[in-house]
Amino acid sequence: MKSTTYSRIIAGTMTWGSWGKSFETYGMLSLIERCIEQGITTFDHADIYGGYTTEADFGKAFAESSLKREDIQLITKCGIQYITDKRPHQIKHYQYDAAYIIWSAEESLRNLKSDYLDLFLLHRPSPLMHGEAIAEAVSTLKQQGKVNAFGVSNFTPSQTQLVQEHVEVEVNQIEFSLTAHKAMLDGELDFMQLHNITPMAWSPLGSIFREENDQTSRIHQQLLELMPKYEATADQLLLAWTLQHPSSIHPVIGTTNPERIANSVKALDIQLDLQDWFKLWVAAMGHRVP
Amino acid sequence: MKSTTYSRIIAGTMTWGSWGKSFETYGMLSLIERCIEQGITTFDHADIYGGYTTEADFGKAFAESSLKREDIQLITKCGIQYITDKRPHQIKHYQYDAAYIIWSAEESLRNLKSDYLDLFLLHRPSPLMHGEAIAEAVSTLKQQGKVNAFGVSNFTPSQTQLVQEHVEVEVNQIEFSLTAHKAMLDGELDFMQLHNITPMAWSPLGSIFREENDQTSRIHQQLLELMPKYEATADQLLLAWTLQHPSSIHPVIGTTNPERIANSVKALDIQLDLQDWFKLWVAAMGHRVP
Amino acid sequence: MKSTTYSRIIAGTMTWGSWGKSFETYGMLSLIERCIEQGITTFDHADIYGGYTTEADFGKAFAESSLKREDIQLITKCGIQYITDKRPHQIKHYQYDAAYIIWSAEESLRNLKSDYLDLFLLHRPSPLMHGEAIAEAVSTLKQQGKVNAFGVSNFTPSQTQLVQEHVEVEVNQIEFSLTAHKAMLDGELDFMQLHNITPMAWSPLGSIFREENDQTSRIHQQLLELMPKYEATADQLLLAWTLQHPSSIHPVIGTTNPERIANSVKALDIQLDLQDWFKLWVAAMGHRVP
Repeated sequence: MKSTTYSRIIAGTMTWGSWGKSFETYGMLSLIERCIEQGITTFDHADIYGGYTTEADFGKAFAESSLKREDIQLITKCGIQYITDKRPHQIKHYQYDAAYIIWSAEESLRNLKSDYLDLFLLHRPSPLMHGEAIAEAVSTLKQQGKVNAFGVSNFTPSQTQLVQEHVEVEVNQIEFSLTAHKAMLDGELDFMQLHNITPMAWSPLGSIFREENDQTSRIHQQLLELMPKYEATADQLLLAWTLQHPSSIHPVIGTTNPERIANSVKALDIQLDLQDWFKLWVAAMGHRVP
Repeated sequence: MKSTTYSRIIAGTMTWGSWGKSFETYGMLSLIERCIEQGITTFDHADIYGGYTTEADFGKAFAESSLKREDIQLITKCGIQYITDKRPHQIKHYQYDAAYIIWSAEESLRNLKSDYLDLFLLHRPSPLMHGEAIAEAVSTLKQQGKVNAFGVSNFTPSQTQLVQEHVEVEVNQIEFSLTAHKAMLDGELDFMQLHNITPMAWSPLGSIFREENDQTSRIHQQLLELMPKYEATADQLLLAWTLQHPSSIHPVIGTTNPERIANSVKALDIQLDLQDWFKLWVAAMGHRVP
Repeated sequence: MKSTTYSRIIAGTMTWGSWGKSFETYGMLSLIERCIEQGITTFDHADIYGGYTTEADFGKAFAESSLKREDIQLITKCGIQYITDKRPHQIKHYQYDAAYIIWSAEESLRNLKSDYLDLFLLHRPSPLMHGEAIAEAVSTLKQQGKVNAFGVSNFTPSQTQLVQEHVEVEVNQIEFSLTAHKAMLDGELDFMQLHNITPMAWSPLGSIFREENDQTSRIHQQLLELMPKYEATADQLLLAWTLQHPSSIHPVIGTTNPERIANSVKALDIQLDLQDWFKLWVAAMGHRVP
């Protein structure tokens, strides 16, 4: 099985469809094209985005374009049973039996109008999941060429190990940012480094542009000091901060603003000075290092 | 050494003797017989139950009956030095030197009037325990045929590993229930699955019939909804919820009420629908899954 | 590479120089001699102590004495970039690139006027450290005979594993005492026992003589009860309590008082009764064991 490479910055499509406003504003295809222009060739989906509609919106736009499937990488996720008109469940829950996992991957392929997924993730750990059942489904999907690589999302180290006993886990997509940095302290990213698991980070800008509190104002102040030095925007510095962690984190950026997409990629060229990296971390913590 | 099998539901004897009222009400032998009738053939003791008296009460009743030793499995525990008239210690503490462990097992055998224990557990982790000393004691007891299988109770993963380095740990008996479910989230049950350690659960009904608070009232409401569907009592649904976890938890039921003992076993025939399992978990958490 | 042995009680030099008053009061050499007389032959340094001055003060005093290098063991640490006149950084931070680690070890050797370090530690974990870079530096230093043994300080188990993947970690120096005993419960000391890592404990007397609160007053009361029984001082009983943990903790005592140095060593001859060890632990916790 070939090893898949992802663009270091990944486009998250969660709000590209009906969960956001971008669809009307820019159009799905224009967002896809703008990403590819910038070297962002990996697109992160989940079956549930847009209430099970965004994969299909993306797939349709892509199929009608002249873009080539082999020039992009598609990630999607399964396992959350979300309540929509299409799935009138009684309660939001997780499902990981082998038949469902296979069906869900095939459904995603139909929606994305693709023959294969570059990466297929379990969206959330379930206390009821069985490593064997998961491995059985993933093996089948790989043998049929429907899935190139397999991973998890929001899994702890021991939950990852449970699955890893039965099938290779190549990626864990977790929350990580300057404001949500506990994974770099509690062993989660250490575990991924030790086991050659690629971390992907959702919400990589954290709460900085969403919340006003002591932490975010300390960070804004620090960013203002550093922006002229690096001739960079706040977004870029925040992404650069995450990119510099030795575990090789792949940020999944969620923006639907073409300007910010283009902007983000410049973070790849920023190498923060060691002290500047610590200045940002210290601003996030609110106290100096011990 | 043959592998011991335990009944999936285990009878906990903690309040069968002087720590409860059952002894007077039903008599020890009648409780033993009622369990066996229901297929509950494994009896969970600890040296300290009844202030070091319940093993002997049980052993006497069993010896005077026509029941056969090979038809039941006896578990007991050692290591807590509890203050009683028989043991006038200055402070409750734990003791795990090899000589004490061996003496304690032999004392339990004398009390239980048995030649062997099916399973012998360390009752609580002690910061002072030495893996080597424990292994030495357990090896001796196994070689002499006094102990068939060895395990621990209330041990964390790393405490278990410390012992496991020196001697096989087959069981870890921990607190687990719908209201005390953290072991399924913090890696404890993951660790047991990864290392083929059988979990046993003490207090498997949790605080549901002991406390009135927001959590237990949410759970009671949910149980009321599910009881007619499964034609089951609240106890049975709670046990079924625990039995469904993939780590193969063996509940240790503490009741001394013959009705409830008989009732419990029916939980083995209940397979909760996936959504119902989540409904109960969500009722316990107080919020839906992420 | 020969295995280094350390004295079981280690002299911590943090306040022996300009960070304390001892230099004026007793003189560096008199403290060194008093330690050696008592069998405390291992001296714990860090580059930063005294604002990067204490290693040199120690080295000068030692070089001018008739003491032999092979009769003592020198530990030092690197990695904290502390702000002083000599190092006018913008922010306190950690640095662990290979070139810096090597330079720092060599700088310590120059200051200590020694050809080798018995033990070289990374002072604090950095989220940015690379196991490979650390291993490269340590290998070079070992090959050149400049470092005999390598370890870390204040590292969690998974941080230790990250480094251990690339180079042997022989020691982890952490905070440990009766009042700061969480490392014996959270898996940290378990991990060290499992991986043959020697724990050293900084601040081994904890907050007992520094703070007045419910915890320290409970402990003082308990110590008063035990002092006559063991004919020991409070310090000695506290050290004995730590020495008794099976992970073989090496306390790093920080006192600059020759009396207390001499006193400390007598802790090595105290074997606390099991119940007395628990009495002290229970006094620290504020509740009896479960």
